[in-house]
Amino acid sequence: MALETVSVARSHGGVQGVYSHASSETGTQMTFAAFVPEHAAGEKLPVLWYLSGLTCTHANVMEKGEYRAVCAEHRIVFIAPDTSPRGDDVPDSAEEYDFGKGAGFYVDATEQPWAEHYRMRSYIERELPGIIADNFPVDLERQSITGHSMGGHGALTIGLRNYERFRSISAFSPIVAPSQVPWGEKALGRYLGNDRRAWQEYDAVALIKDGARHDRILIDQGTADDFLEEQLQTHLLESALSDVQMDATIRMQDGYDHSYFFISTFIAEHVAWHAKALREQ
Amino acid sequence: MALETVSVARSHGGVQGVYSHASSETGTQMTFAAFVPEHAAGEKLPVLWYLSGLTCTHANVMEKGEYRAVCAEHRIVFIAPDTSPRGDDVPDSAEEYDFGKGAGFYVDATEQPWAEHYRMRSYIERELPGIIADNFPVDLERQSITGHSMGGHGALTIGLRNYERFRSISAFSPIVAPSQVPWGEKALGRYLGNDRRAWQEYDAVALIKDGARHDRILIDQGTADDFLEEQLQTHLLESALSDVQMDATIRMQDGYDHSYFFISTFIAEHVAWHAKALREQ
Repeated sequence: MALETVSVARSHGGVQGVYSHASSETGTQMTFAAFVPEHAAGEKLPVLWYLSGLTCTHANVMEKGEYRAVCAEHRIVFIAPDTSPRGDDVPDSAEEYDFGKGAGFYVDATEQPWAEHYRMRSYIERELPGIIADNFPVDLERQSITGHSMGGHGALTIGLRNYERFRSISAFSPIVAPSQVPWGEKALGRYLGNDRRAWQEYDAVALIKDGARHDRILIDQGTADDFLEEQLQTHLLESALSDVQMDATIRMQDGYDHSYFFISTFIAEHVAWHAKALREQ
Repeated sequence: MALETVSVARSHGGVQGVYSHASSETGTQMTFAAFVPEHAAGEKLPVLWYLSGLTCTHANVMEKGEYRAVCAEHRIVFIAPDTSPRGDDVPDSAEEYDFGKGAGFYVDATEQPWAEHYRMRSYIERELPGIIADNFPVDLERQSITGHSMGGHGALTIGLRNYERFRSISAFSPIVAPSQVPWGEKALGRYLGNDRRAWQEYDAVALIKDGARHDRILIDQGTADDFLEEQLQTHLLESALSDVQMDATIRMQDGYDHSYFFISTFIAEHVAWHAKALREQ
């Protein structure tokens, strides 16, 4: 798989790059950002995946996330994929910011006209890890995952379904129960159809109720987040955890909103927390 | 002077705001960003000014600068003004990224049609400090200044002309001798006219040759900066410093370019360095 370098820049002693490649899953050219810290020749570094939210590309967290200093300190490769397939051939719903391009919801769509290209689950779970392994100095035995909002949903569901692959899971202001909130009902209904049984594997709360487990989950949620009450509903996850007697750290952060001003405040703590899990032998 | 709040968000324990106000200097509505760290009631904090480069607004450094963590740590207010007057009434040269809007060069223009609105020198030197003092918990006895590229030129020239106001001056990839490089010759020629004697107070190298001094100057310049050879020419400042036997710290940073990936790498060191000067009684 040929990787094209879109841009590279030295930053915090390492290299922040943007790369693109033809994806067999999405049938499109896909773009992602990767930060590789300074490291010894031959050294293989752990990987932290960051899944972005609605309307975002690889670029939002790359520009505003403030993760490079702490990833350099802990020598962790940081991968930021795009949030959907792109291109003129890809069906879209241009008037809707929360569906179509920029809103892949980390599912493999089964409904038309979305099923051909909207395969972000398989892209993140299967295809992109191989491309990362082939092109970067990484140790895929040491992976963790995080994300924001729709990407927090992605991190939780991909992390829970693949608990053996990810040593730790964190999220910023995640959608925790898409089956129960407007953003999720709209996206899952149109990508996956009306049979809600098909939605379950894309819903962190439903997965946990169904038995999915992970012993290292950290979530930060701002109390001044305009989406908290209607779309995020962190309490649904807290209830599910309590019902199944599963531990996770959920921190309500006083006065913080949904923006990168919030994410960048706590990302250093998240990376340091993941680093502990990633360092274990 | 009424200050309008454009936006506020909690970040790194403090508040990142964007504000606008009617400016008597530029005759336009001006916008700036201000980060105020958490602080004790009644506490007055020192101020670090950040002047941005060509094409930028207040927003570029606010989004990509990664200054909030370190400003919160040292309890320093960070002010990021715009780079020119804005609005439909303001003359512009829309095809040119390096002249007109977004390219005020921190001068008071004397030529037409620029003279009425392009008064960024007086705006930064005289008007905005009063607005900051009236609206934020600051101690204007403790100020320092920094900037990037065209804003590095602004920081150096405003800092050198007002050495008693600024305890320390730093810059990222500054234009050090605008009178001798294409960006500067174009801008100074059109804003100030062809008599080069009028350019001198807007040229750091010329100011130093003419006797301006400051004992705390720190400059970082990337060696992979595409503008280094033609526009920035750091060696002209090094020569001038050597000629007058003036000390300054100029660090050539191996492999870094002109972008915020570079600035964000070193801004924590700059803020910590300014903090030392700002803490002195």
